Amino acid sequence: MLINYIKRYIQLTEEETNLFLSKVHIRSFSKGQYVVQNGNTCKYESFVIKGCLKTFYIDNEGEEHIVMFAIENWWVADLGSFLTQTPAAYNVVCIENSELAQISYHDLEALYVAVPKLERFFRIIIQKAYVASQQRIINNFSLPAKERYTLFRNQYPDIDQRVPQYMIASYLGITKEFLSKIRSMK
Amino acid sequence: MLINYIKRYIQLTEEETNLFLSKVHIRSFSKGQYVVQNGNTCKYESFVIKGCLKTFYIDNEGEEHIVMFAIENWWVADLGSFLTQTPAAYNVVCIENSELAQISYHDLEALYVAVPKLERFFRIIIQKAYVASQQRIINNFSLPAKERYTLFRNQYPDIDQRVPQYMIASYLGITKEFLSKIRSMK
Repeated sequence: MLINYIKRYIQLTEEETNLFLSKVHIRSFSKGQYVVQNGNTCKYESFVIKGCLKTFYIDNEGEEHIVMFAIENWWVADLGSFLTQTPAAYNVVCIENSELAQISYHDLEALYVAVPKLERFFRIIIQKAYVASQQRIINNFSLPAKERYTLFRNQYPDIDQRVPQYMIASYLGITKEFLSKIRSMK
Repeated sequence: MLINYIKRYIQLTEEETNLFLSKVHIRSFSKGQYVVQNGNTCKYESFVIKGCLKTFYIDNEGEEHIVMFAIENWWVADLGSFLTQTPAAYNVVCIENSELAQISYHDLEALYVAVPKLERFFRIIIQKAYVASQQRIINNFSLPAKERYTLFRNQYPDIDQRVPQYMIASYLGITKEFLSKIRSMK
């Protein structure tokens, strides 16, 4: 699944594919389990084979703010922590039992040298992450909540059935009550 | 100057350097001139040879919010617009007369094919942009304004002499009066 995803962007020989896969660790996580913990260094970049996760921070008042959900075919990490190998500011937690394909920082750096084509793949992946993050900032100040909810549902198909409503409200930066009102407007 | 900057990250042969430079256009902009205009597609990624620019958005109330300054050795663009070649959400304006080294989207895509090493360079540049953008979000909710001001001064040395105080206040998300109070606390 990960290899098919990569092959959308770059072509790998069988040898390169095998080298890449030898550095990827498939791991199972339980619902509620932390994949990244605020204060610890994020050791892996994780590709979601199966499951659903949330990335969030806790503000000074102790309130949780969800900045991203990850479902099948998404990458998840505290990318700032991963790329600089410094303590994470975000938490990543499984909302469902999840199966992740993980690559460590050092293995990835070595892979860039061994398979330079992967530079292209990860350049494109990081570009997409950057664009999504900028788009989210722009949407939050320029779009009404109802339109943000519509965009959210397009970005994460069927997520309404998988994620509790209070988490979707947190992601949209609105109250649970207001989300419920928006949903009833459809 | 741009080439020295690139050589911090990758080694280029003379031929590769010449090919790269043949795609870079050095352009002069006047103080107040728009490099990227909200609603138009951002055609170039720009490296600042000389000068100072601000990236900002206008909220629904018509208020300007500065998200980034760019000085010598920084890259500036509406990266989301540039990478997807869709209308820009941000504006980029020169605060001083500026000299920029610009690469167009199509030239850059062609350069990736001709000089694959540039994938690595731009992967690293975009990673840095992504990390800085995530760090700014985290700082805005977790650090007091005084510490954000200190970080800002470390990130942009000597910028206090180059940028009006009201713009720095906008970048920090505080009022001009509060910034003045923070500065007097030193």
